[in-house]
Amino acid sequence: MRIEILCTGDEILTGKTINSNYSHIARRLEEVGLSAYWGTTVGDDRDSLLAAFRQAAARADAVIVNGGLGPTVDDLSQEIAARAAGVELVLDEAWLARMEEFYARRNRVMPPNNRKQAMLPAGAEFIDNPIGTACGFAVTIDNVRFFFTPGVPREMRRMLDEQIIPRLLALGGVTGVTRLKRFHSFGIGESRADQMLSDILAPGADIKLGFQAHYPQLETKLAVRGIDGADLERKLAPIEAEVRRRLGNFILAEDDQTLEGVILSMLRDRGLSLSIAEMFTSGTIATRIAPLPGAESVFRRSAVARDLAQLRAAVGLATGGDAGAVSPQAAAAVASMLRDSSGSSLALAVLVDLDEGADRMELGGTIAVGIADGGVAVARQARLFGGRDWIRLGATELALDCLRRHLLGLPVDEQIDFERR
Amino acid sequence: MRIEILCTGDEILTGKTINSNYSHIARRLEEVGLSAYWGTTVGDDRDSLLAAFRQAAARADAVIVNGGLGPTVDDLSQEIAARAAGVELVLDEAWLARMEEFYARRNRVMPPNNRKQAMLPAGAEFIDNPIGTACGFAVTIDNVRFFFTPGVPREMRRMLDEQIIPRLLALGGVTGVTRLKRFHSFGIGESRADQMLSDILAPGADIKLGFQAHYPQLETKLAVRGIDGADLERKLAPIEAEVRRRLGNFILAEDDQTLEGVILSMLRDRGLSLSIAEMFTSGTIATRIAPLPGAESVFRRSAVARDLAQLRAAVGLATGGDAGAVSPQAAAAVASMLRDSSGSSLALAVLVDLDEGADRMELGGTIAVGIADGGVAVARQARLFGGRDWIRLGATELALDCLRRHLLGLPVDEQIDFERR
Repeated sequence: MRIEILCTGDEILTGKTINSNYSHIARRLEEVGLSAYWGTTVGDDRDSLLAAFRQAAARADAVIVNGGLGPTVDDLSQEIAARAAGVELVLDEAWLARMEEFYARRNRVMPPNNRKQAMLPAGAEFIDNPIGTACGFAVTIDNVRFFFTPGVPREMRRMLDEQIIPRLLALGGVTGVTRLKRFHSFGIGESRADQMLSDILAPGADIKLGFQAHYPQLETKLAVRGIDGADLERKLAPIEAEVRRRLGNFILAEDDQTLEGVILSMLRDRGLSLSIAEMFTSGTIATRIAPLPGAESVFRRSAVARDLAQLRAAVGLATGGDAGAVSPQAAAAVASMLRDSSGSSLALAVLVDLDEGADRMELGGTIAVGIADGGVAVARQARLFGGRDWIRLGATELALDCLRRHLLGLPVDEQIDFERR
Repeated sequence: MRIEILCTGDEILTGKTINSNYSHIARRLEEVGLSAYWGTTVGDDRDSLLAAFRQAAARADAVIVNGGLGPTVDDLSQEIAARAAGVELVLDEAWLARMEEFYARRNRVMPPNNRKQAMLPAGAEFIDNPIGTACGFAVTIDNVRFFFTPGVPREMRRMLDEQIIPRLLALGGVTGVTRLKRFHSFGIGESRADQMLSDILAPGADIKLGFQAHYPQLETKLAVRGIDGADLERKLAPIEAEVRRRLGNFILAEDDQTLEGVILSMLRDRGLSLSIAEMFTSGTIATRIAPLPGAESVFRRSAVARDLAQLRAAVGLATGGDAGAVSPQAAAAVASMLRDSSGSSLALAVLVDLDEGADRMELGGTIAVGIADGGVAVARQARLFGGRDWIRLGATELALDCLRRHLLGLPVDEQIDFERR
């Protein structure tokens, strides 16, 4: 089924707003086994909108229109939809009442121009928006079904999942349900993950494998289609188990979990507290964990410095003489002292020694991670490359992942694809 | 002039990559007084590309095509451009030699499939790419000029500014030069800035005023057109001065400068060092300054904690008894003690007391900022709203801006639009 995504609005057309609604819609279509065939962007302009609707109807089997459902004069989607479908705009009394109620609940009177949002093309199919005043609707233009969605991302996303995708699947004669299973890993590049999982699916399986790299993490996605929930479960279970077996220790979180969230949960569940010492990562690790809800009782303190002597002083280590070089031993010493001085159950230290010279793709750095928990301190060293920003991102992830591995009793020094030994 | 931006590639079409190239191109066009009239996205598919080229030629005066110039089999832009223009592909010997040289400089042999990147439609105008192997080119399809640009953002951006925009301006009969002047401010919302500057331009002026909000900062842009550099200067100077006068102390940086960069420069120039103490901002302030080139000699250390007693302990203040509440006095005390214990010339402390309850738009927080420099400590308090993330972003910016104002001798407690008093 050829699906066109038609995005409207001057903010999008002129580049003032990056069109992340387009990529969200296209990605969701892929994940349920549909796909975008064409994308169009036009401004808040009657002639452009009408031409775009006509052209989309000529080449697509279904069209998702995003934006232009607001209360202001430059919101034209209903008007042009009606014109393209050859019908009048009529007031949807039920939606008008819902909007008035929406305002009343907030102790406000609905501004008169919001009435425009209840004017729909005659005969249009109403599509609910439970969280905003821009309702969706569907009309047929030149025998092609058009689905109109609001531009506000969270309203669009919910309407897409709950209302539009089921209609598109029905339109395409696709029955059943879908689910997207996601695995987040650190340390495996996209091409190697692709190789590792290449033969995981039987030919003709109702599951689609996909990857999305967000350096330094990789997201591995299984999009499955089935008759019902039980069927999804039956199909997904063995493949999920196989992905977990093959990616193994590198999987750090699944679905909506994050690495820092997983670590925080483990620490909370065990009643442990954490302190952190950082060099070139400069507080990036603290910013991942400390502001999370629930971190108040876990995160104790963090010390940040650009040189090792300062970091040692900040955690209470002797400052006289040479601070020594970045090494696993130095990281372990900082972690141990920080644990003592802060009184936390665990301390994580990450030291970075950036190579000399200007920032460039080939620039490398030496990373040392130390973890103290009262037993023998754990430490690990790695060489990362890719310039200042990539080294900082990589060191942050490496340190957090070492902590996750340590808490789970996994080896902290398993080689990752991004390091050179 | 009607300009279409035609983006190609499965990664863009399927939403795997967010189409930030589109918004960059559209924004740059606006900034030089041109504008995007239509946007099209298609995948790496011969029929789609050919149809998209034909349709663009039918509605636009000029077309910028982005992507599809790579060495792999799914890169089809040259092939379809030649077909649409009704010509053969021919080898550009000069570009082939440049590519071989490009590889040789990196001590590598050019892979044979890169040869494809030197195959251009016969009669095409060559467009240089000084930083990559995908050269650009221009051809005429159905009497409309098409400009082909690489998908790699930094290569596209440079080619757009240096090669494509001058050609588009010439094509549109626009002579002369353009410049974009940018001001970055903190504390003024977009609508108020719009009001403050509404009458700044005479009718028919060759200058266009625009805004882009990046919460909590606002970017104010002056796009000017002139005959030559001297003309630009003459037109811009009085308007620039007026913007500086009206936005006044709220302007924190101009053009490519950043707030943290401006602060770092002032500290370096004066031979000063800095330490930081942060509560709910959790290291965000440190991550803005500490990793910058040149910060090694300025940034001394940072202490991060989620509660005030821990933060006081981390900087060496008495820990017995009640740590007290978040207040300007408490922030000043932390800053003063941190300055002493770290031995830095200046210390900045930001304390945050988040309101109770779940994260929501209405959630607020009390921010206290303290600065110690050996004289009388400076402090300021503010109430910010908008949920956890917005409070953290706002508090970070407020603290850095207080430091900037203090270093410049400006009032640190000037009311900002985001706070409620």
